[in-house]
Formats: sequence, structure tokens, C-alpha cells
Amino acid sequence: MLPLSRFLTLPSFARQSERSVTAPQGFAAAGAATGVKKRGKLDLGILVSREPCVSAVTFTQNAAAAAPVRLTRETGQCGALRAVVVNAGNANACTGKQGLADAARMRLLTAQQLRLPVELVAVASTGVIGVPLPMERIEPGIVGTARAVRPGGGEHFAQAIRTTDRTPKRGAFEIETSEGVVRLGVAAKGCGMISPNMATMLCFVTCDALLKPDVWTVMVKDAVDASFNRVTVDGQESTNDMVLALANGAAGVVPGEQGLERIAESLRAALLSLALAMVADGEGATKTVKLSVSGARDAEEAEHVARAVADSPLVKTAFYGRDANWGRIVQAAGQVLGGPDAVAPTLDVAYDGLNVVGGGQPAVLGEGAQERLADIMTLPEIELTLDLKTGEGASTVYFSDLTHDYVTLNAEYST
Amino acid sequence: MLPLSRFLTLPSFARQSERSVTAPQGFAAAGAATGVKKRGKLDLGILVSREPCVSAVTFTQNAAAAAPVRLTRETGQCGALRAVVVNAGNANACTGKQGLADAARMRLLTAQQLRLPVELVAVASTGVIGVPLPMERIEPGIVGTARAVRPGGGEHFAQAIRTTDRTPKRGAFEIETSEGVVRLGVAAKGCGMISPNMATMLCFVTCDALLKPDVWTVMVKDAVDASFNRVTVDGQESTNDMVLALANGAAGVVPGEQGLERIAESLRAALLSLALAMVADGEGATKTVKLSVSGARDAEEAEHVARAVADSPLVKTAFYGRDANWGRIVQAAGQVLGGPDAVAPTLDVAYDGLNVVGGGQPAVLGEGAQERLADIMTLPEIELTLDLKTGEGASTVYFSDLTHDYVTLNAEYST
Repeated sequence: MLPLSRFLTLPSFARQSERSVTAPQGFAAAGAATGVKKRGKLDLGILVSREPCVSAVTFTQNAAAAAPVRLTRETGQCGALRAVVVNAGNANACTGKQGLADAARMRLLTAQQLRLPVELVAVASTGVIGVPLPMERIEPGIVGTARAVRPGGGEHFAQAIRTTDRTPKRGAFEIETSEGVVRLGVAAKGCGMISPNMATMLCFVTCDALLKPDVWTVMVKDAVDASFNRVTVDGQESTNDMVLALANGAAGVVPGEQGLERIAESLRAALLSLALAMVADGEGATKTVKLSVSGARDAEEAEHVARAVADSPLVKTAFYGRDANWGRIVQAAGQVLGGPDAVAPTLDVAYDGLNVVGGGQPAVLGEGAQERLADIMTLPEIELTLDLKTGEGASTVYFSDLTHDYVTLNAEYST
Repeated sequence: MLPLSRFLTLPSFARQSERSVTAPQGFAAAGAATGVKKRGKLDLGILVSREPCVSAVTFTQNAAAAAPVRLTRETGQCGALRAVVVNAGNANACTGKQGLADAARMRLLTAQQLRLPVELVAVASTGVIGVPLPMERIEPGIVGTARAVRPGGGEHFAQAIRTTDRTPKRGAFEIETSEGVVRLGVAAKGCGMISPNMATMLCFVTCDALLKPDVWTVMVKDAVDASFNRVTVDGQESTNDMVLALANGAAGVVPGEQGLERIAESLRAALLSLALAMVADGEGATKTVKLSVSGARDAEEAEHVARAVADSPLVKTAFYGRDANWGRIVQAAGQVLGGPDAVAPTLDVAYDGLNVVGGGQPAVLGEGAQERLADIMTLPEIELTLDLKTGEGASTVYFSDLTHDYVTLNAEYST
């Protein structure tokens, strides 16, 4: 099932189903343990459509993009991809020419096993940076996994793509449309190195509706913009991010306007659910904060303020400490709004609707308000609003707190 | 004495002396405990020159600048300031009209006690944000402290301006010039909310040479740019930053070209010493890293890359974990260099001269290199170099690691 959140509304016309990326018809998948991860954990996954697909794919914009990203982006047929091979535990990033050769070898082997042209196969990797892939484990792993793909394999696939994720992140919808039922499946991983222009995350989407390439591309882009590009754990954009969305038409349904709108809404809800799950699962996180900035001079300013607050280690540690330390929020906003000609912001700040700053000054808290505020700060999901009161610009981001466990995980996760 | 660092060279023509800001002739100071800080710690300081001064002052650029900053910047005679009153434990920031009135009251009382016009008195505050000043403690504190100012009071003044600083940050030089001996004194505080455009820091500089206003202004600006604007603990610019530099000419020495160069060099060394001490004392920090970025397309790109690496929580936790996790350095640099048309960087990365990445690929480490690298990672001061190999742009920043204690301090330091 999709992870739930108070910040999420699931569509009423869609019913959740099992098997994630293999819930839509005509998709098959498998996950296997090659030994790259320890203790027999699944670490290699293959997903394939039995029919041709229209595909939409979004890559990290990091200049140091990993070999699988570069290979797929530069030599894949990115509008018609039909399969993907993913390994977890090693990112094949900063691995130079050997890395590119290894990614190409992964793709070739997978294509051969699936009897597909190489340019229809995507490659994705996630894990440690700067270490060559152990191809002696990956190669037999690919052969075995490709042979094991089956229509019920979505759950194993979703398991295989995880790294330090504490929870699985996958789900599926059966969507009623005027033209018939279509299915949407999703599986993702990600919990650290999470920031805009995609989190350090991989996400795979399948759909069995018959969709035009441009319609599918726009639908996926909009949903990614409203989900993965709205979350931050630590402000870090990874070298390996990829969202790959395949639509194969296997349901034989050509959705009309209402159907397309329903698929789009379901896709937005599914990706937002996964994105919020990544924040909640952010390394060491104990809280998810939805920050809504309004009243900025324009959307860009709102976005800058939102990111500055969301990525401030002082703000993040205050949430961890359950302290409504709004001074740090005003300070982080002020840093972005600053400059030689800056005027003091007359902003409002509220936690879950409880106003703590009004017009740039501490609000007078009424009876019981301190206790209510203390209760709010214990919630796992908190809504923080910031009204700059200078214009119409608005932006929303979701972020996690910064905790002892974040430091422990990242000081110990070693090369 | 000034805090030492391997990244610092002290001038050979200057001798360190005692009494910090009161080492130069004609300056007097005092520090007192008003009860704003607990356990009788000093928390209010006054510094004054018995002669008129030329003054140079740099303020935070944060739009939410605190009341004392706004008062001093907007109504002080910033080229001729002669005294400053500083309180620690409460920043008088985000305190609205009451805060401005309180800062003005602090200034008026100080000016009355010192028999100076109000516009020659600066006000500075540091501590918690968003809480009104306890004026019932501050007011008698000012009266008592003003009466206690004396030529040997620099040490008490330096103590009084500290907040969570673990170490005092002050020192003084006697500088030999062709025209005679002049003295330079410094006292500073700062360890969290440290970033460019001044750290969350206060710094007071005194000098008894007779200097022209424009010469002093440029000298101070250059030294601030090369020190406080080069360090980052957590990327956060505070609401209260201030550097105030007073030159009163009381030594009766008008330095020539050589003398001016010597004062400038001593000032740069003193401020870099204090800035490095702030990083070393960064909340919870165990390490100081000097990061030199070279080979960028221009200075701005070098600066962006340096800041991105220095403020990456993944890079900072890796240093805490003593792990030469260069993949995170390449990732952070790649995030800044990224974009739709980004090319993979062919950069070099070295820790204390030991090359770990060459041309964007992992370097082959020779015999004993792993052990040497492990030793380097245990040092309290590490030099990290990053050559992007695309142009001539260069930038240097100093940063601290991110530790469990940073989280503890900032999750518990409460409003």
C-alpha cells in the first residue's frame, strides 16, 4: 500500500491494489540477491513490459551524473524505453571509463536476456559512490534475475532497489475511467541526499493505459515537479537520480479527457506519497514539516525563502528538539531577503495555524497557547506557514528534521 | 594570546601582548554580570576610547537585522564611533518596536554615563532571538559597567561578549613601524550560525595609530573579507553580526607606507586567527577544513563550489566520521556545476596533498597511501584541495564538521 500522510489526499475514484509496478497489465519484474548487499538482501531488480511502451524519464542534473544516468540519457531511446535493470549498494558514480563500460555491460546482458534492443533498456544504480561495480556478482545476477521476471514480481523488485530505506515505498491504483479500468504502479527508493531537481532517489512508474508520448511526458513532469522536486532532507542532489515512467497500453483502454485527468491525479498522489515517505524516512528523521511560504514578491523569492528555511540546520535541529524556535525561521528567511537595501520583514509565522509571529513581532499568545504549541511540536507531521506579506509569490516544500541519527548514519556510512 | 592554527602565519614584526582591546593606548573597557546569563557569568561589556576615533563598521546583511544593528546602522555616526555597549545572552532580534526602544535606551544610558553624544555609541547584542531584553537587569548593569571601565579591562570585556563559545577569542599586537610602535587589539565571539557576509559573530578592534578614515575603512574591509567572510560552520547568517573597528591615534604615531602595510597585515592575521578559532569552536566541531577550490571558470563559480562543499551535511559528517568520502565532495561540486548542459567534471581532489581523485576518476593509491589517508583524517586541521581544471577561478573557505554535539547543542538551546 502507498505510505499515508496528513498532507496527502488519495483520489476517491481509484482503488489501491497490490504488486506495485507489476499491477498494470503486461509488466513483469523480479528482484534477486547478488551479494553486493550483505546478508542476502535483494540488490538487483529488473522490470520489463511485454509490449512496446511510451516512456518518460527524468534524470539528475548533477554535473557528476553517474555512469548509468549518462549511458541511459545519452544512448537510450528515452521516449520508448521498455525495461530497466537496477542495482542497489553501489552507485557506479565517479567511476570513470570503467563505470561507463560496466553500465553498458549491465545493459547489454539485460537486453540479451530479455531479447530487446539495448537502446530500449535503462540502467539505474544507487549506493556508495566511487567504488567500481563488482561485475563478477552483477553479471550472473542479471542473468538469473532476467530469467525470474514474472507478472507478480513487483514486490521483489521494490525490495531490491532499497538502500538505507527503513520502509518499502511502493503501491498501485486501479483507476475507473469512462473507457474502462486502467492501472498505475509505482516503486521508489530514497531517504538521504534528498533535494530539489529530484531527490537521491529512483522511482519507477508503470501504467497500462494507451497514452500519447507527449501527454505521458507532461503528466510525469507535472507529477515529479509537485512531489520529488518539493522535498528536501539535506539539500543534496545526488549523482544517480532517475524517474522512469513506462506506459504500455496493455489494458487496451484509450482514456478520454476525464480518464486522463484521473490518471494524472492518481499519478500526482502516488508520487507525492512516495516523496513524503522519503522525507519521513529521511536519514534519522523524526518529523516531516510542510512549509508553505506565501506573500513573497514572486514565486522565485518564495522558493528561495522556502529552501533556505527547509535546509537550515538550525531550523532542522529545533524541530528535532520539539522547540518552536521561530527566531531561526525568521533568521533563515532574512538571510535570503537580505542585502544592503533590505527592509525588515513584517512576516507572520504559524505552526499548525497557531500564530507565533505577527508583523515581524512576537505574537501575544493567549491562554493555553503555549501548551498547544508544545503539543504541536510533538507531532510527526507539522504544518509551518510563513507569510511575507509583500506580494503574491508562493511555494511549498516538505522537509525533515536534523537528528543525532542523521549524523550517526552519515558519519558511519563509509567508502 | 591569539588562537593559533596551521593555516595562519603571524607577522614577524609584531609582538603579541596582553589586554586585547585595551592594549592600544587610550582605550578603556569593562565587563560585568547583570544576571541575563546564569551562574554569575559576565554578560555586559563596554568599550570606550578617551579620544575621538575614526571608526569602520560592518553589519550583517540579514533583512531581519536585530534592533541594535538597525539602531547603530541607521542613527549612529558610523565613521566616528567612539564606544560600544554589548550584551550577551539575548540578541534583541525579532523584538519589534520594543526592541528598538530597548536598544536606544541601552545607548542613551551608556552615552550619559560616558558623557558622549548618543550617535558616537554603538550597540551590539548576541544570544537568543525573539525574547524582549530584560531591561530591569540591563539598565543597572550598564551604569555599573560604565563606572568600572579602565585601561586594563579588555579581558573582562572579551569574557562578557561570549555566548556558547568554548574558548575566549582575543589578542593584541605591538607593531614596530618606522614611525614608532603602534598597538592593535581584538576581541570576538562566535561559534554557531556562522557563514559568509560575516559569521554570527561580534568582533571589536582597537588601534592607537593615527589613521585616515578611508585608509582604516579599506583596511578593515579587506581583513574582514579575508577572514570572517571565508568561514562557515552551518551556512547561517545571523541577525546580529557586527565588526566595529576604532582607531584613536593615541599613540601619536602617523604610520607611513611601511607602517600601514604592517598594520594591515597584523589586522588580517588577527582577524583570520579569530575566524579560524570560531570554526574550530563551531558548535560541536572536532575539525577545521581549509578548502581551496581552483581551476573554476571564474571566481564566482569557485566560490559557489566551495560553499556547496563546505555546507554539505554529507561532506561535513564524513569529516566527523574521519572518512575520506570524496564521492560526496564530487557530488556537492557536481550539484553546483550541474544543469541540462553540464559536462562531467574531470576534477582532482586531494586531502593534505594526497591525491584521491584524478581527472574525475578514482586515483590509484600507492603503497601506504591508505594508511597515510587514514592518518590525515584524524588531524584537527585538514587541507582539502579541489582543482576543477576548466579555468583560473579560485576560492578558499574554512569549514567545520557536523557532529552529534552540533545536533545536541542546537536541539537543546531553546527559546
